[in-house]
Amino acid sequence: MEKEVRDSIIKLVENSRDAIVSSIDEAGYPNAKAMFRVKNEGLETFWFSTNTSSIRVSHWTKNSKASIYFLDSEGFHGLMLTGEMEICSDAETKLAFWKPGDEKYYSKGPTDPDYSILKFTAVKGNYYHGLRKYLFKIDEVKE
Amino acid sequence: MEKEVRDSIIKLVENSRDAIVSSIDEAGYPNAKAMFRVKNEGLETFWFSTNTSSIRVSHWTKNSKASIYFLDSEGFHGLMLTGEMEICSDAETKLAFWKPGDEKYYSKGPTDPDYSILKFTAVKGNYYHGLRKYLFKIDEVKE
Repeated sequence: MEKEVRDSIIKLVENSRDAIVSSIDEAGYPNAKAMFRVKNEGLETFWFSTNTSSIRVSHWTKNSKASIYFLDSEGFHGLMLTGEMEICSDAETKLAFWKPGDEKYYSKGPTDPDYSILKFTAVKGNYYHGLRKYLFKIDEVKE
Repeated sequence: MEKEVRDSIIKLVENSRDAIVSSIDEAGYPNAKAMFRVKNEGLETFWFSTNTSSIRVSHWTKNSKASIYFLDSEGFHGLMLTGEMEICSDAETKLAFWKPGDEKYYSKGPTDPDYSILKFTAVKGNYYHGLRKYLFKIDEVKE
């Protein structure tokens, strides 16, 4: 992939507060929801925080297939990454991602059993800008 | 459903230029993409226009399961509707939805074989506002 395209993909991700994160529900329908982008490593790994009891966690427990989508609707840029979602409920990971203010969502603090970290690992991507489209495998955009 | 909640859902849809429209790809992954909201009838039926040759049309041809998602990220509102996507390629439907400027995407005009209309029929919905959540069947929000 050309450096210029890769740079504009990275910029889109870094400028996005939210990602649209998708799962497959128990009836086989795609489900989408905006989630805060907590942390990422390049285009390969992304972390989100969520309630362990949420509907979406139950989806990924049964079917790890997922996608995340970043959109700049004014600039007509969009990036979709497809891959696998893992639910991390170990104390170490949860503490590492804990931020002041998270107690608004997880009242019992970083050990709250209803607090989990989601780890998304991308396999391939689809980026468009205007009418141009770029399909790629994650290996092609690694640093 | 309370009138106040229904009204705020309708307002979210009417204020959204785009919807995030999702399909299931051939490998079983959820795929998402922003599309212009062309027309809707209440919360039950939504139309979009697309290239017949697009990857997403091939997904829905094989698996009609779909969702559409409207987001007001600043106001922390989101609406997801799940249902079925139908591809309309008949001349009458295509002409009815044709708008000046569409030739940018479909160079041969309203009869362009690469121009199709997507018709989404919702079955159920999931609306959240802040930390409140409302799950509903479409029958409950019909006018």
